[in-house]
Amino acid sequence: MTQPLPMPVTLLGYGAATLTTLSFFPQAIKTVRSGDTRGISLRMYLLFTLGITAWGIYGLLTGDGPLIVANALTLVPALVVLERKVQSLRRGDDRLW
Amino acid sequence: MTQPLPMPVTLLGYGAATLTTLSFFPQAIKTVRSGDTRGISLRMYLLFTLGITAWGIYGLLTGDGPLIVANALTLVPALVVLERKVQSLRRGDDRLW
Repeated sequence: MTQPLPMPVTLLGYGAATLTTLSFFPQAIKTVRSGDTRGISLRMYLLFTLGITAWGIYGLLTGDGPLIVANALTLVPALVVLERKVQSLRRGDDRLW
Repeated sequence: MTQPLPMPVTLLGYGAATLTTLSFFPQAIKTVRSGDTRGISLRMYLLFTLGITAWGIYGLLTGDGPLIVANALTLVPALVVLERKVQSLRRGDDRLW
């Protein structure tokens, strides 16, 4: 795009980025507190952590600061949930199917 | 950005978008099949569905096709999980805290 975006549109974009980034934190907190990973999809968190890692690398290669920050932040709770899911499966507290 | 991106970088971006978009489908399938929403964070799915709705509107306003498609697709499984969570809470099969 060649024209700068109107301010409300830019703010909407930042608001959207903030909401999707923040959303994974309550899930990570809930999963750590309850230890209940049975309803959590392993495949979701595998695909998602791979996806946001790819987004972060894409941000680094294109020099897109907000993309790097948003994905680096989201990676933290996503990895926490993934780690808890894997630990539950290993301990036998949860099953793959 | 003024220069077109090198092809591998563009492909990485599309790969990242595909992974994060697809990732919510196995979660929706698992949640519908098992009906177990106790480990699912209501706050995550409220913030997330609001966030991707905002991303989709941002895509419409900026004329960004991939952003519209990716967020419209992600909205489907996210709404499915949110609806199941709300239904479980209403039936008393799940608790908020």
